[in-house]
Amino acid sequence: MENSLPIVVRPTEIDVNGHVNNAKFVEYLEWGREEWYDRSGLTYDRLDAMGAQTVTVNLNLNYRKECRQGENLTIVTRPERLGRTSFAFHQEVRKADGTVAADAIVTLVTIDPASRKPRPVPDELAAALKSTDNG
Amino acid sequence: MENSLPIVVRPTEIDVNGHVNNAKFVEYLEWGREEWYDRSGLTYDRLDAMGAQTVTVNLNLNYRKECRQGENLTIVTRPERLGRTSFAFHQEVRKADGTVAADAIVTLVTIDPASRKPRPVPDELAAALKSTDNG
Amino acid sequence: MENSLPIVVRPTEIDVNGHVNNAKFVEYLEWGREEWYDRSGLTYDRLDAMGAQTVTVNLNLNYRKECRQGENLTIVTRPERLGRTSFAFHQEVRKADGTVAADAIVTLVTIDPASRKPRPVPDELAAALKSTDNG
Amino acid sequence: MENSLPIVVRPTEIDVNGHVNNAKFVEYLEWGREEWYDRSGLTYDRLDAMGAQTVTVNLNLNYRKECRQGENLTIVTRPERLGRTSFAFHQEVRKADGTVAADAIVTLVTIDPASRKPRPVPDELAAALKSTDNG
Repeated sequence: MENSLPIVVRPTEIDVNGHVNNAKFVEYLEWGREEWYDRSGLTYDRLDAMGAQTVTVNLNLNYRKECRQGENLTIVTRPERLGRTSFAFHQEVRKADGTVAADAIVTLVTIDPASRKPRPVPDELAAALKSTDNG
Repeated sequence: MENSLPIVVRPTEIDVNGHVNNAKFVEYLEWGREEWYDRSGLTYDRLDAMGAQTVTVNLNLNYRKECRQGENLTIVTRPERLGRTSFAFHQEVRKADGTVAADAIVTLVTIDPASRKPRPVPDELAAALKSTDNG
Repeated sequence: MENSLPIVVRPTEIDVNGHVNNAKFVEYLEWGREEWYDRSGLTYDRLDAMGAQTVTVNLNLNYRKECRQGENLTIVTRPERLGRTSFAFHQEVRKADGTVAADAIVTLVTIDPASRKPRPVPDELAAALKSTDNG
Repeated sequence: MENSLPIVVRPTEIDVNGHVNNAKFVEYLEWGREEWYDRSGLTYDRLDAMGAQTVTVNLNLNYRKECRQGENLTIVTRPERLGRTSFAFHQEVRKADGTVAADAIVTLVTIDPASRKPRPVPDELAAALKSTDNG
């Protein structure tokens, strides 16, 4: 499943250079992933009930275009890779005209909430991640 | 007890106008209060064990001077008032030369974590809040 | 003119207590005021061309209800008072059911961008602020 | 030159999971780079006078350990690579015991402020970046 989250750049997200701050893009990506989980019915509580939490282990992010206050952006999130205990999303921050302002591969690991050790990706999450590959 | 927390203004705390954003001052004040609680031995966990949490109910904040990247600031926090279920801190953000960049009265209420209803200020917290008046 | 800005609470706006952080409410209010200026045709550049900038001098904010991730909120902004060099907005953060999560009086002063000294509120801004009183 | 910036994790930097939010690490890295430029005498204004600005084009960040409120961290920043128009920093967020909580390669390009196009890295910046390789 690919998910698109529309957002508007707010004034406090702009830095002294007049554009969206680099760290704020990382927040935008987190908002997009959260939306993906919610739409997939895999909320934090649901995953927790399966004995799993997801933690980000790597962020590889390309900054391509500046974004400014008031811009309409879309955060596009789709699964990219599925391993035994880890998986990745491909994410884009798109401008209103469709150009890519930023894109990223975000790699996550599923851990056991108690031991904090990696554990296999729960079946239901794996199924949601794989459904895209067939789409 | 009056507490002073020294901080340095970091680049991501500056907004498009080139000075510390208004909302960031509210974070600075929270950092100062947290330091006050810690120095008073009244951490979140300690208060929780007493069956109490503190929640901010009013913030009255005067912005007096702009602060810029790299400035050394001091967040000064002292108890201002103690009621039955509520209390207040007086806080200042001071510049290196001692001038006040911002000052605030922050009013809090102690609640019962389970019922989320106001409850009397725990004795130990009340004692810490009162010790200033005698100082 | 009263302006309403709909927003959704994003995951990075939640603090360790599981609700929207106090400082984030101050950002929400800034987003609401920015929207009010934009809808009134009084952008930053337009005001600057009139030889005026607006700076916040006081924030008096009541926190009334906790807000949680994913909540739909509305930031309601209307002019409250107009003086010679200063003015104020009344702002509310409303929940989906209409209850008020937070309300504030935000007082601003118009300054001359060069001298940084207070100057009379420009006529066009004064007119926009007054139009509410008659409405 | 390698630069070390000591910081303390503040309460508003903690997310709902009780640890420093992923986006906040990106801010920490920016604070570290800013400190590197300042210590190298290459402030924003100085670079601007040379007809250059630096913009981040890629961030490759590994999250290794959770950080918690009140922790003392050190942001270590050293040049990693120098090309014709681009360069990179290697950065680490270290805990008090020396373990690495996060590490990153951050790639930047120097642009002409007017045309916003890439331009060669100014000699003075190149010299500062190279001095590490010999160190």
